[in-house]
Amino acid sequence: MLNFENDYMRGACPEVMQALVRTNMEQTLGYGDDPYTAAAVEKIRVACGCPEAQIHLLIGGTQVNALAACAVLRHCQGVISPVSGHINHHESGAVEATGHKVLALPAHDGGKLRASEVREYLRAYWADENYAHMVEPGMVYVTHPTEQGGLYSLAELREMAGVCHEYRIPLYLDGARLAYALASDRNDVSLKDIASLCDMFYIGGTKCGALFGEALVVPRPGLVGNLFSLIKQRGALLAKGRLLGVQFDTLFTDGLYERVGKVALSAADRLAAGLSAKGYTFYAPPRTNQLFVIVDNTVIDRLRGQATFSLWEHLDDSRSAIRFVTDWATTAADVDALLELL
Amino acid sequence: MLNFENDYMRGACPEVMQALVRTNMEQTLGYGDDPYTAAAVEKIRVACGCPEAQIHLLIGGTQVNALAACAVLRHCQGVISPVSGHINHHESGAVEATGHKVLALPAHDGGKLRASEVREYLRAYWADENYAHMVEPGMVYVTHPTEQGGLYSLAELREMAGVCHEYRIPLYLDGARLAYALASDRNDVSLKDIASLCDMFYIGGTKCGALFGEALVVPRPGLVGNLFSLIKQRGALLAKGRLLGVQFDTLFTDGLYERVGKVALSAADRLAAGLSAKGYTFYAPPRTNQLFVIVDNTVIDRLRGQATFSLWEHLDDSRSAIRFVTDWATTAADVDALLELL
Amino acid sequence: MLNFENDYMRGACPEVMQALVRTNMEQTLGYGDDPYTAAAVEKIRVACGCPEAQIHLLIGGTQVNALAACAVLRHCQGVISPVSGHINHHESGAVEATGHKVLALPAHDGGKLRASEVREYLRAYWADENYAHMVEPGMVYVTHPTEQGGLYSLAELREMAGVCHEYRIPLYLDGARLAYALASDRNDVSLKDIASLCDMFYIGGTKCGALFGEALVVPRPGLVGNLFSLIKQRGALLAKGRLLGVQFDTLFTDGLYERVGKVALSAADRLAAGLSAKGYTFYAPPRTNQLFVIVDNTVIDRLRGQATFSLWEHLDDSRSAIRFVTDWATTAADVDALLELL
Amino acid sequence: MLNFENDYMRGACPEVMQALVRTNMEQTLGYGDDPYTAAAVEKIRVACGCPEAQIHLLIGGTQVNALAACAVLRHCQGVISPVSGHINHHESGAVEATGHKVLALPAHDGGKLRASEVREYLRAYWADENYAHMVEPGMVYVTHPTEQGGLYSLAELREMAGVCHEYRIPLYLDGARLAYALASDRNDVSLKDIASLCDMFYIGGTKCGALFGEALVVPRPGLVGNLFSLIKQRGALLAKGRLLGVQFDTLFTDGLYERVGKVALSAADRLAAGLSAKGYTFYAPPRTNQLFVIVDNTVIDRLRGQATFSLWEHLDDSRSAIRFVTDWATTAADVDALLELL
Repeated sequence: MLNFENDYMRGACPEVMQALVRTNMEQTLGYGDDPYTAAAVEKIRVACGCPEAQIHLLIGGTQVNALAACAVLRHCQGVISPVSGHINHHESGAVEATGHKVLALPAHDGGKLRASEVREYLRAYWADENYAHMVEPGMVYVTHPTEQGGLYSLAELREMAGVCHEYRIPLYLDGARLAYALASDRNDVSLKDIASLCDMFYIGGTKCGALFGEALVVPRPGLVGNLFSLIKQRGALLAKGRLLGVQFDTLFTDGLYERVGKVALSAADRLAAGLSAKGYTFYAPPRTNQLFVIVDNTVIDRLRGQATFSLWEHLDDSRSAIRFVTDWATTAADVDALLELL
Repeated sequence: MLNFENDYMRGACPEVMQALVRTNMEQTLGYGDDPYTAAAVEKIRVACGCPEAQIHLLIGGTQVNALAACAVLRHCQGVISPVSGHINHHESGAVEATGHKVLALPAHDGGKLRASEVREYLRAYWADENYAHMVEPGMVYVTHPTEQGGLYSLAELREMAGVCHEYRIPLYLDGARLAYALASDRNDVSLKDIASLCDMFYIGGTKCGALFGEALVVPRPGLVGNLFSLIKQRGALLAKGRLLGVQFDTLFTDGLYERVGKVALSAADRLAAGLSAKGYTFYAPPRTNQLFVIVDNTVIDRLRGQATFSLWEHLDDSRSAIRFVTDWATTAADVDALLELL
Repeated sequence: MLNFENDYMRGACPEVMQALVRTNMEQTLGYGDDPYTAAAVEKIRVACGCPEAQIHLLIGGTQVNALAACAVLRHCQGVISPVSGHINHHESGAVEATGHKVLALPAHDGGKLRASEVREYLRAYWADENYAHMVEPGMVYVTHPTEQGGLYSLAELREMAGVCHEYRIPLYLDGARLAYALASDRNDVSLKDIASLCDMFYIGGTKCGALFGEALVVPRPGLVGNLFSLIKQRGALLAKGRLLGVQFDTLFTDGLYERVGKVALSAADRLAAGLSAKGYTFYAPPRTNQLFVIVDNTVIDRLRGQATFSLWEHLDDSRSAIRFVTDWATTAADVDALLELL
Repeated sequence: MLNFENDYMRGACPEVMQALVRTNMEQTLGYGDDPYTAAAVEKIRVACGCPEAQIHLLIGGTQVNALAACAVLRHCQGVISPVSGHINHHESGAVEATGHKVLALPAHDGGKLRASEVREYLRAYWADENYAHMVEPGMVYVTHPTEQGGLYSLAELREMAGVCHEYRIPLYLDGARLAYALASDRNDVSLKDIASLCDMFYIGGTKCGALFGEALVVPRPGLVGNLFSLIKQRGALLAKGRLLGVQFDTLFTDGLYERVGKVALSAADRLAAGLSAKGYTFYAPPRTNQLFVIVDNTVIDRLRGQATFSLWEHLDDSRSAIRFVTDWATTAADVDALLELL
């Protein structure tokens, strides 16, 4: 079976797995109070260009997003998200379960918020004489890349940060697949740009080479207090915290995080080129490790039992959009084998 | 350094680590929809003697406890816990963060609830004409072994289950260190007994040989509905769910979970015998992999830099109770080296 | 000053106030355990044609809506509401503060949900293979009349109830201004119809003649358990519960609740006719005690200092929609005086 | 029937009721934006000696207590309360429902916290190396008078404020029956003292002459931000806010609040003297409008059907403690009639 369904179907990339094996029998203190976590934090600070960043290594994306909302928002505040944002759609109401509303604005160009629309929403909120009866927007949530592979340009991200700054609310970036944005030719936003423009973000590990884990970064301390107790309270504190330390230490050593992204993008680019050559058209322009392709339903039948993918949307009676995803282990041979079937 | 501070200082026991390595590059569906999780669930059901048990593999103890409370309790209900219970003391208010009160009753004999006191509490609650103004007891929480190494006898657990049954509230058992109870000579409660008497419990993995992970067991389905969405919502759903499946599949193959317990107990017994021989007395009777020893403060100074342990309680100006913990990898040589220092 | 800004600017209608004065020095038990509350409950049951209805007398609308959501929804469930619904917009996130998402669907014809769209939403939810990652729709929220004076026809309400029944989720109706719907010529839905078709609803008192108070009705017991503790917990239990009993007992004696509605509607109809005669057009068709009129901005200036109203929407540079509201005390003379100014 | 069961069995004291009647048909803006509320706020500020105090007029005590906790506490913080505190026992878990733990300390002398014990608890918390795994004490809750009629002396309250100040956590005082403390000969704490020593408190209206209502006072602004939205969100915002304004304006005009207390205390003192004269002993020393008397169970039988009271505690097979409560309308004749029966 050729698996292109998702980027969390395997374990960890070999370097990460080896590091876990190598350190397995060492004894360290728990809860992140270990040298591997300290090293990982230091390397992430360097990579972000933020020597004082507050960094917490956590387990999964939904957990991080809810914690971030919880840590930042005051009572009666909500978070602005594109209607297609992961927190609005695919996290079983995790943000609302912390008591906060997700304020959904239109999504553009594969799931992006538009800074101008965010500004207008904020302006209108504060101009409404009944604003105190409404949920106050207290944070802006963006994903990069978005759930449909959209990429903010540096100019767009800068404009969004400007709006947030103007209204004094934090900008939060969900980087579940950040490695695949950073490795894309179509991306002009660096990790340092993100750290400079966002008030809080996370660097995805689970989908980007780690066994599991996400690094929550608060570039300039002071936005949130110490999150340790909140992390514990929300069941997000790993007893053997060094497991996260070891993984991120490895991912941020010798450019592994970049390599992870490059391998997946190289496979995705090869697949996109092959699909174009065969005459396929795209539902969304190829940008990261997710390709959204328009196919006849007969193609779907043909692939069944030989390759996995996601059915994205029924377009009409005869055609659908399907999604192929590459990861840090997808080979050119895998891609070619898939192209053979198409 | 001789580490006796805790049972979560190393990674996973070798069999578990090997299984993770062996399956690392396999591709499976996410969120627990994989053959390893299915196999683990089946083996746990057999071990519990509950062919229809509902089982969820989760990441950590605080997470499981809060989820269990959340899943079982209705609005305005709370959970009865010994005052020394982990949920009452050391989880940063995780249960309260789900909106439920912890109703603390006295702890006896190393952290145990007494069935007679639970019955009296329930009786008095329902007899109070203002009961509707008070938090309704909706679940009983016990740990086995307790936080201080206490063990419920089968008779005690049966009596507690009887009280719960009488008042129609579920009995929940926190088995963070369950392997070390099951392996103890002083324990007469089997896993099947627990599954038969409790309405919900978890089999600890993190402290008992796994890299991380706890298996939440609902022996007789129907108590709670499908928990999948709640698990997702609370940030407790592991994308690569099979990591938990692989670990519990391994732990419940060829008696590994029992062996993990036996190794730690064997070391603890050796240490207890050695301490007795040297004239030390115990703060609590040795029962599981945690030993609570009374020492002169000069001993503490002498150990510093050579062995780790926990300072449990200052008894008076010259003496303290300290805790030594063994695990699945503690050797006789480790124990003897520690005894040398004492 | 001619006040047409809202229907909660005065105290209570005279009959209600007299009853409060008459009973003021009586001594009764607290928390609703008094004969006035019992009488009110009985009269509301008769008015609703539901002899077994569970009824709770509460203080305000936002409180009732949040309690209803809380009482009915399970974890991970949300409530379907029109995007313009009061719970979605003007209650400071009260439903989300109980941990539940408001699932906003398009509003039609002055703030109404369309049964066909609710059905399609429910169908699509359950057809989505990832439904467990999304918030489960667990209740449908409608207002009658709506926030903009919209009225469901009996046929529409019946169809909505059918959809809810089909998907086994409760239909909840917010009747903050119910008296003004019931009294409208354009309304064909009776209180008994509402009790027959909805699973839970409230009869508004605050805006309809009471000093304060809303009657939450669960026509067929069993949907929610006893709500007493939840009401207490959420700070919604009035110590002197009989204050609510006395008011609703009075409102449901000798047709007072109907009269309250009729007076306001009679004034509204007179005002609508006068406005039409003067050539004004309406932003929304006149249906209840709220009139939405299109005016030149010069009219707004002219009224200032002489009459109050709400500015509803800026239509363009020269015209706005404004709202006039009548209540149970608005006289023909008030209306004529206002028409003089226009 | 002679009613001595509680102090919320009647409506409002005549002056308050008259003011409500007098203003009933006036039209004012809603939500507290009216001249009566403004006047009440100003008078309360003067009475408290705090010209800048932030004051919110709310509906009931449980509501105010939960709001105060919610407004002040950060995630992972809890509130220190005596074990007998109303928030710990008789509010159906309202504080926990906002996500915060009640940290119960021993109650002394009728329900009071001891400053020395609070200080020791705070010291021990911060000295514990695992403090971040435990709920951080974030507020101290006291009642004055306490649930059993206990009174803090000025020295005691000052010491408690000192402890709170030392550890930088707010001191909150629940004044549900404050009028009856202020009117007691055994009390040396003035309203100005409370405002000077506490960071937040409420002046009880419901039990002290109002129809309903409590005035939340934050003497020195800055502790909490604007609470308007939170009040709205928690269903605690009264549409006709002026009802609260009118009541508190009246209570704080011409010393009515003091008179309310004096009448009840005068009746309580007469009753206490009469009981002593008849040889009765007290379960707790008479201090406010609540008297706790030890009686033979035959007395209970004799009173049945002629007088109401609360059964406080079964002392042994033949004797019980019962509670008589006086209020702002209890007359000497009522007291004498009750004494006749005893």
